[in-house]
Amino acid sequence: MVMMMEISEFARNLTQDHAQVVPLSIFVAILCLCLIIGHLFEENRWVNESITAILIGFISGVIILWISKWKSPHILMFNEELFFVYLLPPIIFNAGFQVKKKRFFHNFLTIMMFGIVGAFISVAIVIAGSWQLFPKLGFTGLTARDYLAIGTIFSSTDTVCTLQVLHQDETPLLYSLVFGEGVVNDATSVVLFNAIQKIDVRRLTSKAFLLILGDFAYLFTASTALGVSAGLLTALILKGLFVARHSSVREVALMVLMAYLSYTLAEVLELSGILTVFFCGIFMSHYAWHNVTDKSRISTRHVFAMMSFIAETFIFLYVGMDVVDIEKWKLNTLSIGNSLGIYGILILLILVGRAAFVFPLSALSNYMNRGRSSSVTFKQQVVIWWAGIMRGAVSIALAFKQFTYSGVTLDPINATMLNVTIVVVLITTMVFGFFTKPLVNYLLPSNGNNSSDNRSELKSPKEDMTPPLLSLEESTTTNLLRAKDSLSMLIDRPVYTIHSYWRRFDDNYMRPIFGGANSSRSAC
Amino acid sequence: MVMMMEISEFARNLTQDHAQVVPLSIFVAILCLCLIIGHLFEENRWVNESITAILIGFISGVIILWISKWKSPHILMFNEELFFVYLLPPIIFNAGFQVKKKRFFHNFLTIMMFGIVGAFISVAIVIAGSWQLFPKLGFTGLTARDYLAIGTIFSSTDTVCTLQVLHQDETPLLYSLVFGEGVVNDATSVVLFNAIQKIDVRRLTSKAFLLILGDFAYLFTASTALGVSAGLLTALILKGLFVARHSSVREVALMVLMAYLSYTLAEVLELSGILTVFFCGIFMSHYAWHNVTDKSRISTRHVFAMMSFIAETFIFLYVGMDVVDIEKWKLNTLSIGNSLGIYGILILLILVGRAAFVFPLSALSNYMNRGRSSSVTFKQQVVIWWAGIMRGAVSIALAFKQFTYSGVTLDPINATMLNVTIVVVLITTMVFGFFTKPLVNYLLPSNGNNSSDNRSELKSPKEDMTPPLLSLEESTTTNLLRAKDSLSMLIDRPVYTIHSYWRRFDDNYMRPIFGGANSSRSAC
Repeated sequence: MVMMMEISEFARNLTQDHAQVVPLSIFVAILCLCLIIGHLFEENRWVNESITAILIGFISGVIILWISKWKSPHILMFNEELFFVYLLPPIIFNAGFQVKKKRFFHNFLTIMMFGIVGAFISVAIVIAGSWQLFPKLGFTGLTARDYLAIGTIFSSTDTVCTLQVLHQDETPLLYSLVFGEGVVNDATSVVLFNAIQKIDVRRLTSKAFLLILGDFAYLFTASTALGVSAGLLTALILKGLFVARHSSVREVALMVLMAYLSYTLAEVLELSGILTVFFCGIFMSHYAWHNVTDKSRISTRHVFAMMSFIAETFIFLYVGMDVVDIEKWKLNTLSIGNSLGIYGILILLILVGRAAFVFPLSALSNYMNRGRSSSVTFKQQVVIWWAGIMRGAVSIALAFKQFTYSGVTLDPINATMLNVTIVVVLITTMVFGFFTKPLVNYLLPSNGNNSSDNRSELKSPKEDMTPPLLSLEESTTTNLLRAKDSLSMLIDRPVYTIHSYWRRFDDNYMRPIFGGANSSRSAC
Repeated sequence: MVMMMEISEFARNLTQDHAQVVPLSIFVAILCLCLIIGHLFEENRWVNESITAILIGFISGVIILWISKWKSPHILMFNEELFFVYLLPPIIFNAGFQVKKKRFFHNFLTIMMFGIVGAFISVAIVIAGSWQLFPKLGFTGLTARDYLAIGTIFSSTDTVCTLQVLHQDETPLLYSLVFGEGVVNDATSVVLFNAIQKIDVRRLTSKAFLLILGDFAYLFTASTALGVSAGLLTALILKGLFVARHSSVREVALMVLMAYLSYTLAEVLELSGILTVFFCGIFMSHYAWHNVTDKSRISTRHVFAMMSFIAETFIFLYVGMDVVDIEKWKLNTLSIGNSLGIYGILILLILVGRAAFVFPLSALSNYMNRGRSSSVTFKQQVVIWWAGIMRGAVSIALAFKQFTYSGVTLDPINATMLNVTIVVVLITTMVFGFFTKPLVNYLLPSNGNNSSDNRSELKSPKEDMTPPLLSLEESTTTNLLRAKDSLSMLIDRPVYTIHSYWRRFDDNYMRPIFGGANSSRSAC
């Protein structure tokens, strides 16, 4: 078993020659700059943090290119592994940790439909469309596997960017749907991408398709189970050892390490680390988080948010720098017209692919939720459709994985696809990111929006606040009567009923064992 | 300018082959284990966290050795660069950030004497002793440069371990002295070590010695200035941009990034990153920390403490694993008797070298502080002497830097010196670490200690609480009179007077500009 890691190799290369600390310093300095400028423009309705980071990365790239005499705009080589091992886990964990769980589980079925069924629909449309249209613009040479990969690459929405244009307090329902969908969709894309890497593209039978589906179901279940277990184990450890004698630093460190461990373990077991760490985040914040001191609670929130923030900024900075990578542009074989055509086709496919699932699935979700007040209006559907158009870091990372060998490619077709991906990410982030805030303000003006959205807000917590009625002393008759009631409820309002069952189970069995806020506090 | 970092290389090596995530998972899992076991034994008076981590590392090393069929006990290659670039900065920054500044500056001169003059004395004694005694045990082949390096390697005390046996609340004066000395001493050792690497050992004239001193003075001043500037700049940014509109995550991220930037910048400028980041920590916690929200304050403390904690545990785990590194033992050419002799000589030299400065310098410090109540009793001097015997991560890192080429050596002499270093670190940590708590309890029993130590505690804050008397409206006469008073005070009680001047300057000029607690709050 070769167990020696090349950290040493890396560290040696880094500082053996003293000049190697220079890039690290420059990159940290640019990160600081991004942070400050991002803060200055925070209130601006047109600019968001991703756009700022991309622009600063672009400017830095030009300057570095100029200093390095037009050789390379990079001070760091991007690599999909750096992304998947160090940058993605904190982002996704933080997403799970900070998501408002009550709302997430309330809309669980809708989110899962959007994230899984929606991703499948979008992937299919992008694959079919690009397969048909690319050769017509003279862009040939892509293999079947490449087209399959393109489908997943351009179907992963950018959670990070979305978070910056929608706000949890202003549009809670939309935020929860778009954000929840984004996370599940990211996971779906990565899992699908990996599944595609493994299949034999020469024999694309319906059996192969079923195998992908089966593989996907297994990965989804096993990854979720691992994440949930890691979260619950952390809760148990914290409850058993730390509640009696708290130690803030250890508590925070344990949560960070266990979260990362769940991710690496999932990778070792060839599961989806991204799903695992997402569910680990949800369960840690639902149980483990309540077993630590108040100070540790504040700190863990900040620690996770900070790591995620730095990782995100890092990625967007890199995207900005990558735009001016001359080597890749030189390898690009397409004419300007054809290039623009490819960008247009892809953005169109993304728009169509997203519309093809947002509107039908919203209708389905409204039908399932018909017993409840929180249906998704058409205007809201438009915002959901629009806000999820942005493509981001996951697309870039998958493109690097498909079209380069550890960040480098000399093949013109591959270099072109990398460029296409980066340009599409740029256009969607800049253009759609730019107009999302104004669109939200226009379609859902603050008053109307607040009244319509908050009305449902105000109702649902009340329904949920009803203390669980089950108690051991109740007579069997009452239980039978209730069972009958529940059954008719389940048929009438399936989503609500499942959620309310989960809450009873949670209050009666899970929280007493794993710790957690009592029922009334958990509403927020 | 070659600006491409090999992060990608490292990341590729890490996960290209799926099995490479395995060592990462194992290491994180062992870290979690250390953390939990360390927590369980926290109250135990005999065991401290370092000892626990070393033992767990040792056991893991044996198990991994067994699994890997007696090839290597390592899952990670230790490398002095990994240590100096990633593990040391958070430890030292946290030390500066958490140190009780009032006490630190109160004892500033004493700490500086211990840390700088003391380190020079200790280095000289270890060099002279080993140069004389090693050949007598048949251990020859070391170069002059090696002996000079041995002097610095065995003169750096282990701050980390010391923190775990002395407590800020129980023995505040001792804690502040030993801890402050440890940090300055670490910096001195590293700076001296680097100075020695550069000098021409064949011409060791008094001029060369003066050059080292001059080099040291330059490094010390420039590094401190850089650290102070970084801390003040952070304070200014936070005060200027964030006080009006707080953003916790950005505040925490900015502090972390600026701290790390100060370290890498110092390395780029060929200064001592360790001193820079230490003073950056002090100034950040004195000014910048007061410009953020209460929640950010709690979080920053935890974030820094956690990063430091993980880095420390990492290092001690590694030391434990390294003990069972068969390759190094095979290269060891000394007989068991001679090996024991070498360990004995080094530990003796460490004991003598430390005694040679603790007792005389304590006497000098008592003389300088004669106007104040807080003199260091003989019993306290014994504890200071004993608690600083432990050698730790810095020694190991310097030894790796001197005797290996990026963590690997095939030379028997070098392998022997590595083994010797690890054994001496183990013995001092285990034996002296083991007996420190009991010794403190025996020499300074809780009652007597509290009364004697707390008496001076109670007095000094009162003296300092006196609001600064200077104000702009006062007449010139009063100022002249005060100047005369101050002058006689300066002669009588130099340390106290300097400190009180600093406090006035701080209250009148620094805090209004850079932010900070008001005078009464800063007492704690």
